Amino acid sequence: MAALLDVPPELAAIQSTLADALRRVEGRFNDALRSDLPPVDRLCAHVESYRGKMLRPAVVVLSGLAAGSRDREAPEVSEAHITVGAVCEMIHMATLVHDDVLDDADTRRKGATVNRLHGNEAAVILGDYLFSAAYRLCSTLPGETGRRTALLIGETGMTLCSGELLQLHHRRDYSIDEPTYFEIVERKTASLIAAACRLGAEHAGATDEVAAGLERYGLRLGVAFQIQDDLLDLTGTESVVGKPLRRDVELGKLTLPLIHHLAAASQAQRGRTLGLIGAVPGVEGEREGVQALQAALGETGSIRHAREVAVGLVAEAKAALEVVEESAAKRFLMLMADAVVDRSF
Amino acid sequence: MAALLDVPPELAAIQSTLADALRRVEGRFNDALRSDLPPVDRLCAHVESYRGKMLRPAVVVLSGLAAGSRDREAPEVSEAHITVGAVCEMIHMATLVHDDVLDDADTRRKGATVNRLHGNEAAVILGDYLFSAAYRLCSTLPGETGRRTALLIGETGMTLCSGELLQLHHRRDYSIDEPTYFEIVERKTASLIAAACRLGAEHAGATDEVAAGLERYGLRLGVAFQIQDDLLDLTGTESVVGKPLRRDVELGKLTLPLIHHLAAASQAQRGRTLGLIGAVPGVEGEREGVQALQAALGETGSIRHAREVAVGLVAEAKAALEVVEESAAKRFLMLMADAVVDRSF
Repeated sequence: MAALLDVPPELAAIQSTLADALRRVEGRFNDALRSDLPPVDRLCAHVESYRGKMLRPAVVVLSGLAAGSRDREAPEVSEAHITVGAVCEMIHMATLVHDDVLDDADTRRKGATVNRLHGNEAAVILGDYLFSAAYRLCSTLPGETGRRTALLIGETGMTLCSGELLQLHHRRDYSIDEPTYFEIVERKTASLIAAACRLGAEHAGATDEVAAGLERYGLRLGVAFQIQDDLLDLTGTESVVGKPLRRDVELGKLTLPLIHHLAAASQAQRGRTLGLIGAVPGVEGEREGVQALQAALGETGSIRHAREVAVGLVAEAKAALEVVEESAAKRFLMLMADAVVDRSF
Repeated sequence: MAALLDVPPELAAIQSTLADALRRVEGRFNDALRSDLPPVDRLCAHVESYRGKMLRPAVVVLSGLAAGSRDREAPEVSEAHITVGAVCEMIHMATLVHDDVLDDADTRRKGATVNRLHGNEAAVILGDYLFSAAYRLCSTLPGETGRRTALLIGETGMTLCSGELLQLHHRRDYSIDEPTYFEIVERKTASLIAAACRLGAEHAGATDEVAAGLERYGLRLGVAFQIQDDLLDLTGTESVVGKPLRRDVELGKLTLPLIHHLAAASQAQRGRTLGLIGAVPGVEGEREGVQALQAALGETGSIRHAREVAVGLVAEAKAALEVVEESAAKRFLMLMADAVVDRSF
């Protein structure tokens, strides 16, 4: 998404530095996946077409620049940052490939998923290949900083999976509360973005305070990002978002607007909504009931509530950057935080 | 399987050292998986019940002792060896959990699989959790040896997955040749056993020559192990092996005896066998045709051929240990190699 931001003229230089770094990340990503077996290479080529916003590599690079550069005109992005960026993107891709199997999804980024084209077996193994490639690439980083990076990446992988398992545990749990929702989202989405920010800072030699500030920025940003995803799933336009919508509801994954609505609604309204989302045994979920669902969410102010929470998190993310010295990279991070809740895809 | 070996009196001491080390590996394994979320912990507890032969930790420990101990009476097994053993076992478990999803298997080690009890989604994510936990644990190993260990473990994960993808690519390929079979098996099964041996040696400060010898031992042993598994799937007794048999055939995975048979058989016999294994469109595979299949394999000497290949690999594995000094641990490794092709489970 960094490449798609509309930036003021004074940030044009940092935007071009970032775009250049992201191209290097792509190269490292593709090199790290290469196999001597053609059937493996073909699957990896498919993963390249999943490439999207590159949010994780972008925050690695920008956190590194913000923590280390002090507003130089043409800051250099280190090899370590490129590697860490590719590692984070690869872990993210591994989870996307497996998520599509779990959700039986046919489309991603307007193209067919790996499971749709090559079957569930290939998709499960390809995800494992991506995880392994990420950890292998991570272990090329030298010294004690390299070891700590690998440790944090491994830990983050565990956190991410535990978030997905917690979500699975609460599937079709129509009484799930907001704290549980945040626990799930912090783990499954925000933990990797937070780790990306921390690692960007650490590889720029940041102090603990600055690294912690950037990590906190990433955590808040990650949760806001997920809430915006949830909102798009409920209110977005399929052709703009690039994948079928209303899947969360279909799959029994309760998102913030719905959790708020079910808690705030009158008993009669709650019953009607449960019927609309197919939660009442024997009552078929109405696929045409999208507008009715949106209207119901509107009545309890639940869409507005979720937007407000996301906007509040973006403010917290930006506040966490107070410990970071002023720089173009820092201003870019602020701009990205705003863009997370403004996006329509 | 090391614990189950019938050893001569002079190896009793090393057997007890090994048994003790494997208990420590179990402890480290369980500690490394622990989560603060009860639904995650419950799934991890299930994985503990998968614990079987612990072949990979056993060769880590024995390779370390053989490379470093010089036949001392009561050699110590280092903390690093316990960690590496747990890492290798965890990677192995991750692949088992995912394999059971891919094969839609209901039973493993005489108990229900994770996918059977908790669903495919939980099993896919649990496998990812195990991969992540393995890499995290691996990254606790300090210094340059630690980094090289993590690199080799990541690389081995990629090799292993590429072997599984190659196998998938050749599913229901009834003209697959022996070199392709060996390529698949070296990758998907033997590579992790070979890495376990090399890492055991490296963490004992072995020379390159000794580490390479032990790695070669592991590679040959691993292929022999897989061929024995293939043979058990075709000729074993379900109650002894502990899982449903003849699954390879059902799933279109061609194993060495069958590959040999299809190449050696007359055209008429080949046609009959393809009918027996359900490879002829429109002809239902006869589940009662096991005896007919075994008879057919017997006629072309294919069971005997596979046994001979496995026995030859065991001899090569033992020969690879020539560069390793004599010791009780080395004699134990020799004994284990023989046991691999003698086992009935």
